[in-house]
Amino acid sequence: MNFDLKWSASEKKVARAAFDKALEVALGKTLAEFKKKASDAATFSEMWEIEDYLQQQRRKIDQLFDYRYSQLIVVFGTLIQEGYLDESQLSGLSDDKREEIRHFLAWHARA
Amino acid sequence: MNFDLKWSASEKKVARAAFDKALEVALGKTLAEFKKKASDAATFSEMWEIEDYLQQQRRKIDQLFDYRYSQLIVVFGTLIQEGYLDESQLSGLSDDKREEIRHFLAWHARA
Repeated sequence: MNFDLKWSASEKKVARAAFDKALEVALGKTLAEFKKKASDAATFSEMWEIEDYLQQQRRKIDQLFDYRYSQLIVVFGTLIQEGYLDESQLSGLSDDKREEIRHFLAWHARA
Repeated sequence: MNFDLKWSASEKKVARAAFDKALEVALGKTLAEFKKKASDAATFSEMWEIEDYLQQQRRKIDQLFDYRYSQLIVVFGTLIQEGYLDESQLSGLSDDKREEIRHFLAWHARA
């Protein structure tokens, strides 16, 4: 994978907006899932399982949302894969970048 | 404080029952508080605050509920202080132990 892609000013704007939107989606899904789990919880062990769930989600989101241009292709690929981002939100990016993302997705679909 | 108190078999039974009951109360209060907080939570930061709350409660309960006979006087004193235990639940303990617990409470009430 080519990590030396150049990002134009307009691409950076598109990337930032897509990134922020995906973060909102990821957090929103986590919040909804958390509230459902908490509402269903009836035992002490279920309560501690929710603590573990929140810890894992916090770590996962922290690791996934890495806004470095050298990482963004993999990050966007993963966000699409996780359902946090739609490919159409990246339509302002150059063809080579979108192609790299598609390669990433195709590679992971085979894995 | 005298940590060399002897615990008879019947006192151990009373202590264990009071300890287990207090743990149930502490966990029950935490569960109720957790469910209320989770139900009220509307933002991502409130969700992470609840993770922190659960982490603190888990640590606090783990540290507090230390069933070693050398620690039980302080543990019972603290449990009474925290509202997890009523002194009457310790009525099967010897007078010297109940006196030690009262000393602990009096000392902490002054602090």
